[in-house]
Amino acid sequence: KEISPMLLEIPLELAPPTLEDSVSDIDRLTRGLKRTGCCDVERLSVGLGVMRDLANIMRDDNWNVTAYVMRKKCSNEVLRVEAGNGRSKSLGLAVDIGTTSVVVYLTDMSDGSVLAAASGHNRQASCGDDVINRIVCAEKDGVKKLGNMVLATINGLINEVLDSSGADYRQIRNVVLSGNTVMTHLLLKIEPRYIRRAPYIPTVSEFPILRGGAIGLKVSPLAAVFVMPGPAGYVGGDIVSGLLYAGFHREELLTLFIDVGTNGEIVLGNKDWLMTASCSAGPAFEGGGVRWGMRAEEGAIEKISLDPDTLEADCSTVGDVPPRGICGSGMIDLISEMLLTGIIDQSGKFATDISHPRIKREKDETAYVVEFADKTAMDADIIFTESDIDNIIRSKGAVYAGFTVLLNQAGLDFSMVERVVITGGFGQYLDMERAITIGLLPDIERSKFQYLGNSSVAGAYMALLSDEYRREAIQVSNSMTYIDFSSNNQFMDEFTSALFLPHTNVDDFPSVKIRQ
Amino acid sequence: KEISPMLLEIPLELAPPTLEDSVSDIDRLTRGLKRTGCCDVERLSVGLGVMRDLANIMRDDNWNVTAYVMRKKCSNEVLRVEAGNGRSKSLGLAVDIGTTSVVVYLTDMSDGSVLAAASGHNRQASCGDDVINRIVCAEKDGVKKLGNMVLATINGLINEVLDSSGADYRQIRNVVLSGNTVMTHLLLKIEPRYIRRAPYIPTVSEFPILRGGAIGLKVSPLAAVFVMPGPAGYVGGDIVSGLLYAGFHREELLTLFIDVGTNGEIVLGNKDWLMTASCSAGPAFEGGGVRWGMRAEEGAIEKISLDPDTLEADCSTVGDVPPRGICGSGMIDLISEMLLTGIIDQSGKFATDISHPRIKREKDETAYVVEFADKTAMDADIIFTESDIDNIIRSKGAVYAGFTVLLNQAGLDFSMVERVVITGGFGQYLDMERAITIGLLPDIERSKFQYLGNSSVAGAYMALLSDEYRREAIQVSNSMTYIDFSSNNQFMDEFTSALFLPHTNVDDFPSVKIRQ
Repeated sequence: KEISPMLLEIPLELAPPTLEDSVSDIDRLTRGLKRTGCCDVERLSVGLGVMRDLANIMRDDNWNVTAYVMRKKCSNEVLRVEAGNGRSKSLGLAVDIGTTSVVVYLTDMSDGSVLAAASGHNRQASCGDDVINRIVCAEKDGVKKLGNMVLATINGLINEVLDSSGADYRQIRNVVLSGNTVMTHLLLKIEPRYIRRAPYIPTVSEFPILRGGAIGLKVSPLAAVFVMPGPAGYVGGDIVSGLLYAGFHREELLTLFIDVGTNGEIVLGNKDWLMTASCSAGPAFEGGGVRWGMRAEEGAIEKISLDPDTLEADCSTVGDVPPRGICGSGMIDLISEMLLTGIIDQSGKFATDISHPRIKREKDETAYVVEFADKTAMDADIIFTESDIDNIIRSKGAVYAGFTVLLNQAGLDFSMVERVVITGGFGQYLDMERAITIGLLPDIERSKFQYLGNSSVAGAYMALLSDEYRREAIQVSNSMTYIDFSSNNQFMDEFTSALFLPHTNVDDFPSVKIRQ
Repeated sequence: KEISPMLLEIPLELAPPTLEDSVSDIDRLTRGLKRTGCCDVERLSVGLGVMRDLANIMRDDNWNVTAYVMRKKCSNEVLRVEAGNGRSKSLGLAVDIGTTSVVVYLTDMSDGSVLAAASGHNRQASCGDDVINRIVCAEKDGVKKLGNMVLATINGLINEVLDSSGADYRQIRNVVLSGNTVMTHLLLKIEPRYIRRAPYIPTVSEFPILRGGAIGLKVSPLAAVFVMPGPAGYVGGDIVSGLLYAGFHREELLTLFIDVGTNGEIVLGNKDWLMTASCSAGPAFEGGGVRWGMRAEEGAIEKISLDPDTLEADCSTVGDVPPRGICGSGMIDLISEMLLTGIIDQSGKFATDISHPRIKREKDETAYVVEFADKTAMDADIIFTESDIDNIIRSKGAVYAGFTVLLNQAGLDFSMVERVVITGGFGQYLDMERAITIGLLPDIERSKFQYLGNSSVAGAYMALLSDEYRREAIQVSNSMTYIDFSSNNQFMDEFTSALFLPHTNVDDFPSVKIRQ
């Protein structure tokens, strides 16, 4: 697709006025803009701030000027006019604002190339792991405080990408922000308190194009900022962004989409219809509530296999460095392997008849030692406890129950699903087979599964470059039917049934063969 | 016409959200607005400032809210939402920003009634009488200083009308400003310097709708401000406003329109075409450059007749109080009477053969004593000198030359003119017959003349109440063809010919019988 920024930088060479051609400076500018075909000048507006010194600016370099025009939904606005018409490199920024982590891509708006990327922890984490705690915190300490925390996170990452690419923040003139509804409300300092109270209403679903300066982002104050729209309080712009990237809303195939991030949002549908829900899976797969849990960052154990005979673990970490913790894909591997080797049973409890150096009691519960202290970067045994297992079971149970109820609401079942798209912070080595073994994913044909990585930042990047994608994002958001699970009895029943490995209904997982 | 404010105040009673109807607060608000039919909600935008606390405001009075929506050219913007939906009285303000005087009308926007009016001197007068001097002053002292002077004038008048009607400034939510191009540029602090340099280019012709708060007017910060558009540097919004009021651009009759204010702008045309020019008449008719000249305010001699036998003057003043000076209509009467009684000749010089107590030498020139000191409020003889006469002759000559050239450019002559509309600060008793006698107006059928008073504030008042009139003002401004006289040889020739009472070509004034 052609690159179509929101904030255009348009160099103009205007004809000087004469007695015969004596239109006002603004009319001359508008005429010049019209000739470039840049934008609908009938809908053009020029603010008082621009007007005030425009006369001098237009004459400073003999009627050569550069106009900065923001293309909005139903109008175009001249935000600034500068003397001279040399071009400077224009940069773009795609931001994924996760509850746990924030990722930014810096791009060259002339060709769309990614110049640098950076990620870091959302500083709001000090106010709690999940969006509910963040809202509670905002109610106590003020929305501004929470907003400034994530702003500081993003601005820190902007500094990183600018440093590594030798660019100036004023060159960043187009920004796309993708985050869940609570994250975008907090960043923009919009009251979020009613999102956590029934009927869970956010202030905004579809955001107007904002200015970098109004938000406090370390980008050009004129920068145009598109915020990914979100259909509901618990299904936000990050999911719409993910859909934009996954693209199944453009195709016939019936697709199940799951984003296991700090929350757990699912979408079912195809090009004709989209249903969505949030299943409150919790942040376990991103490391939250798990003793040694962490995101898929350097030092995270992301792949584990257990020797069925010796019960010893073979681990590999992100970046091949001594381990610091376990990320989602590692946990899935571990539980699956422990289940298949009989270390734990289908309820996630340790077998009482195994004695092994790796299985030990720790603070009144049993745990498996994934890596002994001498091999870690932490100087402590990295263990996985029964509570950790329980947390993962609750998370995977919520996701699976969500799938089941959504399909049921649509009058469908798993056999009709033609594709399953998985996104979120699991780690690069998410093993589908093992995800099925623990009952996170349904036991259907393996070729139907697809893992996308961070689809939120990928969709934000697409929307950054293309006006068509921005419009598509709005359409997708508006066309999604949101199903609320919070007061849904069927969801509670399915959730309870799914609190088993792989599931209470073993028949639904025929290919999972567990040693009894 | 139906009253259609720019800033709408819309009371809404919204349905509370439920799990089944869980759209975002903004979508709920938009839906409510759509039901009222107030405005095109497809083009509606809500700014970040409104969003931030919207969630609380909407719930504060159980989903009863009042939305303030500004209708702009190509979008509608929600500027504020308040809890509660009781109506408060909404006021409007029409302002004529003259170079010399400023006039304001305070209106009730529910029925269009004028609640109060006030006028005062433009405080910029300390920087010179005409627009050229104001620009020079702005170049020296800064545009801000000049802008703040007229702003203080307007805000002082707003205080007056608010006091006399017991209203609060925050109730003023709609404003229309009408002024010449230099006045509007200065008020809005837009660089005016190129208006006085060939090719005389202003920054803006058609203004966007502005906010009261952005300009510094003592009105609601949200107030929508429409500034009358003007086609050229020397034909501004006051003329467009005057046309709107005169209305001849809606009719077939070929009309000549003349505004003799501090400058002197003329328009020729009808519903099919409009030509306009500025003839640099100078401020003499408003009292500028005339020893005892003043505007048509209390104490101004506005009507004078001379006894042909005794040569004594019979004067009447505005307000029937002892005189303080002479206004435009008084000057026209006086020169005409002095001409007809033989006190002065056709070149404006005093007859050398008359000896009379009222004719005296004053500082090397001859003068006529209009009123002796003991009858004035000033304790000094109110006199009219040869220089004063000369100034008036130059002013009327410029106007008449302007008429002539404009007609000539259109291939027409005075006989084809079907109506002459006169506006400006002459005073209520402008005597057409005498205006013809001195050669200010052409010697055509008297029934064709019409005096309108202050048409600038009258047109502003119309635009204040009606969106249709605002659109009409923009159309009128855009459809006017501006003719520049500054380098026009024909204008110079005609001007020279007109420096005579009534004119060098006596044949053009057959009905003026002068004692030779």
